[in-house]
Amino acid sequence: MQQKRTEIAALGEFGLIDHLTEEVEIYNASTLLGIGDDAAVIDSFGKQMVVSTDMLVEGVHFDLMYMPLKHLGYKSVIVNLSDIYAMNAQPTQITVSIAISNRFSVEALDEFYEGIHFACKKYGVDLIGGDTTTSTAGLVISITAIGEVEDNKFVTRKGAQLHDLICVTGNLGAAYMGLLLLEREKKIYLETPGLQPDLENQSYIVERILKPEAKKDMIAWFANHQITPTAMIDISDGLSSEILHICKQSEVGCMLYEEKLPIHEQTRLNAEKFNIAATTAALNGGEDYELLFTINPKDFEKASNCPLMTIIGHITSAEEGQNLITNGNNKVKLTAQGWNAIKN
Amino acid sequence: MQQKRTEIAALGEFGLIDHLTEEVEIYNASTLLGIGDDAAVIDSFGKQMVVSTDMLVEGVHFDLMYMPLKHLGYKSVIVNLSDIYAMNAQPTQITVSIAISNRFSVEALDEFYEGIHFACKKYGVDLIGGDTTTSTAGLVISITAIGEVEDNKFVTRKGAQLHDLICVTGNLGAAYMGLLLLEREKKIYLETPGLQPDLENQSYIVERILKPEAKKDMIAWFANHQITPTAMIDISDGLSSEILHICKQSEVGCMLYEEKLPIHEQTRLNAEKFNIAATTAALNGGEDYELLFTINPKDFEKASNCPLMTIIGHITSAEEGQNLITNGNNKVKLTAQGWNAIKN
Repeated sequence: MQQKRTEIAALGEFGLIDHLTEEVEIYNASTLLGIGDDAAVIDSFGKQMVVSTDMLVEGVHFDLMYMPLKHLGYKSVIVNLSDIYAMNAQPTQITVSIAISNRFSVEALDEFYEGIHFACKKYGVDLIGGDTTTSTAGLVISITAIGEVEDNKFVTRKGAQLHDLICVTGNLGAAYMGLLLLEREKKIYLETPGLQPDLENQSYIVERILKPEAKKDMIAWFANHQITPTAMIDISDGLSSEILHICKQSEVGCMLYEEKLPIHEQTRLNAEKFNIAATTAALNGGEDYELLFTINPKDFEKASNCPLMTIIGHITSAEEGQNLITNGNNKVKLTAQGWNAIKN
Repeated sequence: MQQKRTEIAALGEFGLIDHLTEEVEIYNASTLLGIGDDAAVIDSFGKQMVVSTDMLVEGVHFDLMYMPLKHLGYKSVIVNLSDIYAMNAQPTQITVSIAISNRFSVEALDEFYEGIHFACKKYGVDLIGGDTTTSTAGLVISITAIGEVEDNKFVTRKGAQLHDLICVTGNLGAAYMGLLLLEREKKIYLETPGLQPDLENQSYIVERILKPEAKKDMIAWFANHQITPTAMIDISDGLSSEILHICKQSEVGCMLYEEKLPIHEQTRLNAEKFNIAATTAALNGGEDYELLFTINPKDFEKASNCPLMTIIGHITSAEEGQNLITNGNNKVKLTAQGWNAIKN
């Protein structure tokens, strides 16, 4: 058979998603927002429901050699809740499906579910269903999260306006440095079994990769201060990749400032040890699950006084492109070098 | 480490689900029905939303050797819609997540999504999101379906009452006979490559396994005739297994009649060839995706005149147990020998 064969890698993750979803049609008036954001939005008599789903595959998204199952369960929930918060919504329910091989015992699964239950309790979310099946190879986890948001308060990636302030919660690059550290220790362990990992004074960055949190507080602050971001996304693939999503969908440009990027001290120290610029970790390191959003400049004062966020730049016209002003006052073009889930 | 190790197989699929979900707590008043039925139910200002999820794993749930990708995409949607109809609800949205290895081309994925889109169109359902990621081994598909149902019209597995009529849509055992046929032809093909499969006059049973349909018409009939079943489930694991679920959750017994079981002529003919009792295929064959439900005896006349269903028995007291009256007038106890998704 002489059929055309296009490699998936040739399209890349985002190209593939665009390609596969270009034929999607909408049949129900209740579908307010479909594919293309952190979550979809469904209308339900004035209240709106938000739905998001993520799949995690062993050997691709996690390594059981340094990821305890309890943490894996916890993190699997968090990455989904993060998508719901990124819509300015409150998560309310999740479904959890897993494919497992018989190398896992019931006790191992219990640990995994302990992490799931712990995240549900902490974030007030109900586990309402799922599917449990056999895997012929590794562990695969698929979670769908459902949330609710007040009428028309949901925030997409496409509302950023000229002069809006660009803000980010917490700090950036820590999860990536934690990952590099765990990968190094794994390598050492494999070469010299029995040697205990050297993770002293690294607990912050290790926790950021193994046990991330979703930014519930930020959404509560928006509600309390009656601010609705103009655009929002959660940072799973790195700041560069995410701000480019907002700029593309909002049809705007951006100016970020290197000196404004919030970077934790442990991230800086480890970046130095690994001979990586801390800014590179902040721009391209993934899995921070911080929120990146834009707000109207009239809210500058409120934003400046908010301890949960840092203003890192502003929105420009599309013609000006997407740029970072470095500490040396050079203007560099932002590119998406974030983690690409579609690999060969 | 001397930790206790319990094999997953020791609990079985349903035992495992019970075990993993016994600690589930509910934090949101909007969660009307959680784990334990075909779908969960979420309240949303008087309208109720129904959510169900299924995971399909290559080598466990499907064999790409005889399952064309387009059919696989179609069937993946159908099995989820079937769960939504089994709640007496209308499916409205789905999310589709897949883990794929690079042995799949973009063209192969297009075929898969063609089936997804075709099912969405036929059933008026919107594809609203998903996740696409790498698999280190086979293809894994996870779909979540969302539906809506009028206030308190949703039907669970636990409402069957003494003397209720037990009904089933369509016919039983056809998908299982189709599977046996395809497995036989695969074996022959592997032993003698090049030999064309002998599927003449078998198109009905082959279609039942490769391209099942969800029972949308039955739900429409209930609405038109103002009948709400007292309990309902879809038949994915075989009639025996499913009626036992209804009996267990409703705390009742049942009496089924072998002579009443609707069995297609092709199913009977092939059962004979394979030296299997057609009744065994009807009772224990899975993947028919017919609906099994109970209705109040006052609706007997309406039910008798409905071309979509067959009355196959009635509900008895729990003490009488779950039984089948054979054509030879023997009473045999029903046991769940349905397909077990958790294998070693």
